[in-house]
Amino acid sequence: MKKLINDPADVVAESLRGMAVAHPELRVDHANRIVYRGDAPVAGKVGLISGGGSGHEPLHAGFVGRGMLDAACAGEVFTSPVPDQMLEATINVNSGAGVLHIVKNYTGDVMNFEMAAELAAGEGITVESVVVDDDVAVQDSTFTAGRRGVGATVLVEKIAGAAADEGRPLAEVAEVARRVNAASRSMGVALTSGTVPAVGHPTFELSDTEIELGIGIHGEPGRQRVPLQPARAVAELLVEPILSDLDFTGGDPVVLFLNSMGATPLIELYVMYADVAAILEKAGVQIARSLVGPYITSLDMAGCSVTLLRADDELLRLWDHPVDTPALRKGC
Amino acid sequence: MKKLINDPADVVAESLRGMAVAHPELRVDHANRIVYRGDAPVAGKVGLISGGGSGHEPLHAGFVGRGMLDAACAGEVFTSPVPDQMLEATINVNSGAGVLHIVKNYTGDVMNFEMAAELAAGEGITVESVVVDDDVAVQDSTFTAGRRGVGATVLVEKIAGAAADEGRPLAEVAEVARRVNAASRSMGVALTSGTVPAVGHPTFELSDTEIELGIGIHGEPGRQRVPLQPARAVAELLVEPILSDLDFTGGDPVVLFLNSMGATPLIELYVMYADVAAILEKAGVQIARSLVGPYITSLDMAGCSVTLLRADDELLRLWDHPVDTPALRKGC
Repeated sequence: MKKLINDPADVVAESLRGMAVAHPELRVDHANRIVYRGDAPVAGKVGLISGGGSGHEPLHAGFVGRGMLDAACAGEVFTSPVPDQMLEATINVNSGAGVLHIVKNYTGDVMNFEMAAELAAGEGITVESVVVDDDVAVQDSTFTAGRRGVGATVLVEKIAGAAADEGRPLAEVAEVARRVNAASRSMGVALTSGTVPAVGHPTFELSDTEIELGIGIHGEPGRQRVPLQPARAVAELLVEPILSDLDFTGGDPVVLFLNSMGATPLIELYVMYADVAAILEKAGVQIARSLVGPYITSLDMAGCSVTLLRADDELLRLWDHPVDTPALRKGC
Repeated sequence: MKKLINDPADVVAESLRGMAVAHPELRVDHANRIVYRGDAPVAGKVGLISGGGSGHEPLHAGFVGRGMLDAACAGEVFTSPVPDQMLEATINVNSGAGVLHIVKNYTGDVMNFEMAAELAAGEGITVESVVVDDDVAVQDSTFTAGRRGVGATVLVEKIAGAAADEGRPLAEVAEVARRVNAASRSMGVALTSGTVPAVGHPTFELSDTEIELGIGIHGEPGRQRVPLQPARAVAELLVEPILSDLDFTGGDPVVLFLNSMGATPLIELYVMYADVAAILEKAGVQIARSLVGPYITSLDMAGCSVTLLRADDELLRLWDHPVDTPALRKGC
């Protein structure tokens, strides 16, 4: 295992320490492993929290800031945070307007966020939860009942974050978040496995001539292993299952999010983007907005994922809303 | 070689095609491989162009936009663009206020930009050039006489871009660019080699237990190979030669730029950041601003580089100036 780390057991704590120094506009509770907006709770605003296992950076802490999350809870690598963390974050971002929990659909995350929501209710805080489950690859998986939550998580955090920043009430912010999830579909591919620091060897083995379609962001098995092939063929294999699952041709344009799994560099990602865009054009799907880069990763896995969101005018307007976080900024 | 590409010979052209679709606010001249701001030339503003071999994305095309570059010329992977490209870009970004060429110190780039500047002078365009040479690792190298240009290139493009955006004249913008270069020092490390698509195998071999200090962004030999060691020890090995080369304790705070070489993910980069920051604090160097992420890469090389800029109040103010490019945005 070749990594820029110290003790594998300290990776999450030390990475949060780096974030705290690099981004003084954030407030980091190191004991509870929670990253907050420096000005949380924001008066009158619905609080948004998310969280999950570490190893998917910049998700979630990199999306804390104006126009996105108020707080992110970090678990160990590929391990859900605990309900106490989520409760603590919920209490601290609640301005009285209630709190939205954005939860990726993994059994541990869902269970712990449910428990945290109950505990918060006991403290008199109104909580709504949205579970993200956009991955078309497989039904049920190693850590999931139903579909896994992947790329759409970034879009939900961005768009619900914008709705909250506009001052909309909790029920509306939650409705927007659910609408984004319902209109999003994703599919990923791995060229290589990532390596969990505490494990020390790759999560799975993949030969030099094979790739795995429908991979999960924790290295969970995908749909199938196929021979390594040109990017345009890989693009077909990723886009086809998405378009078969939801009609993206019905008038509304799409947000196209092409994500690096961590070790795939931008030069390759833009090659893939060109191929994905060509397929969508041929299929009559109109791209309105794009996001290209490493935003929901799987440690040092090489590969990428495609996420499409069918976006009406309101969702596009919210997508364009200013955002100021370590990993996503716009609105100058 | 496992990459998301089609024909290795088409990687640069296809990647630019992806950029053009993903970023409709840019204008891409595919025949000449030049990426422009959509609104170039900007009336009254000094034009800034840069360029170099591809394989370092998002450098340079990802930094085209308001507050940074007006155009970027893309060469083949690790190969300088030609003078005709640079001349074409120079003509098209010149509003009459002159053009600044930002050149990384590699023999081919320097020679070609010099020729382009002469040709532009023949067309009646005033050109100033700044050569970036911030890498303390080695004196002379595979493709360089003198020091190599690495991380400071991003800082020069950002800060000179801000000066130009403020409407300052060419001589002042060039002076700011030279001041940033003179006050910047960098040092990098490789954990693995990148692979040039047209070559098909890693540029160099590095055993599972070795890392290379002072690596170049084209895989040029560094200072020495040392055993793989904890991040905090690697941080010492990167920061010490920088602090020995230039005094960063003299009152002015620094911009700390921690860069991923491509395949090193954010979770590791923030661990490194914490270690680098701790060393700087102990050395009495004050961090005023930070940039953390993959901004000048070497294809799929794993590793990182540290760049320090000694920044006076004016440079910090220009660093904070709004910027709106695919890879760097701020100023909401």
